[in-house]
Amino acid sequence: MNRKGTLFVITGPSGVGKGTVLQRVIQSMDRLYFSISATTRNPREGEQDGVQYHFLTREQFEQRIRQGRLLEYAEYVGNYYGTPLDPVEEHLGQGEDVLLEIELQGALKVKETRPDAVLVFIAPPSYHALETRLRGRGTEEEAVIQKRMNAARRECAGMEHYQYIVVNEQVEAAADELRAILLSCRCLRTKRGFALE
Amino acid sequence: MNRKGTLFVITGPSGVGKGTVLQRVIQSMDRLYFSISATTRNPREGEQDGVQYHFLTREQFEQRIRQGRLLEYAEYVGNYYGTPLDPVEEHLGQGEDVLLEIELQGALKVKETRPDAVLVFIAPPSYHALETRLRGRGTEEEAVIQKRMNAARRECAGMEHYQYIVVNEQVEAAADELRAILLSCRCLRTKRGFALE
Repeated sequence: MNRKGTLFVITGPSGVGKGTVLQRVIQSMDRLYFSISATTRNPREGEQDGVQYHFLTREQFEQRIRQGRLLEYAEYVGNYYGTPLDPVEEHLGQGEDVLLEIELQGALKVKETRPDAVLVFIAPPSYHALETRLRGRGTEEEAVIQKRMNAARRECAGMEHYQYIVVNEQVEAAADELRAILLSCRCLRTKRGFALE
Repeated sequence: MNRKGTLFVITGPSGVGKGTVLQRVIQSMDRLYFSISATTRNPREGEQDGVQYHFLTREQFEQRIRQGRLLEYAEYVGNYYGTPLDPVEEHLGQGEDVLLEIELQGALKVKETRPDAVLVFIAPPSYHALETRLRGRGTEEEAVIQKRMNAARRECAGMEHYQYIVVNEQVEAAADELRAILLSCRCLRTKRGFALE
């Protein structure tokens, strides 16, 4: 069986609980590779190269852009962020599915260059619920909350470009749905590469 | 939320273990309606009208054909078998998914008239494994086994028309896959009918 893996792109606004949902799915499935982004921002306390991010210099990052070794990249607040192409290709080639957790703009770029990528949007049950969660952290100023809510509305406006929507009302149910999406794609005839003998 | 359900067509050769797999899925999911076929054959010992089949006279069945009240039908060994359309429409309209367990020819007819139907084929891991299972029952003559294997090969040749393939090597895993297919289709953006407010 030499099936190729599927590339999954996961997007959701800040505060929706993507991390928790993804963690549960990753722990419960085999043959899954979670892509690690590259960035030029400085590592924060406790962050390790190759774990949270691949930390690159600006020069290294721009070289990778020129070499076409990034699946997508963007610049935010003066720093580059991007998805290294080599490990994605490598794991897909080994028949593993690859998960990218990236923002709307990056997701749309991936969809353009890889039309076979499967886009999954993790949505809050409502904007009100998202705002409650952001406030629930209790540490943010009003202006920060409003800035995040505006960013969330921009992200969510892109939902129409996604194939699947997982509504994170309850973490277990959301993880179950995301897991079902990944597993069902492995059952597609065109992916399964199954021949009866 | 007034989403319409999805129509799933499940096919697999005799002896593949469809019944067991389906039973587990039906027991573990809500909003699922399992279609009951109509037939003109006589009820067997213990069979009840409306449970295993809707038992109809030949005249009643042919009237339903003329009225267009069958989603598909076929004649086998002098008896009609078919899928009543009304309950299918009714349950789909209520947002429930509908499962039809039918043979290849019927499945292809459904796909023709309902291109949005999702076709799932339940396959044995190999022909050898299927034959072993058929023999395992221990009650059949060699000629009967060979006849079943020939029928199985004809059914399986149609696998290429199916969107999903579930390989029933181990019942739990197969049920998990079928369940994932059903659940993932509920997460399709076009099906979910989800609007953030």
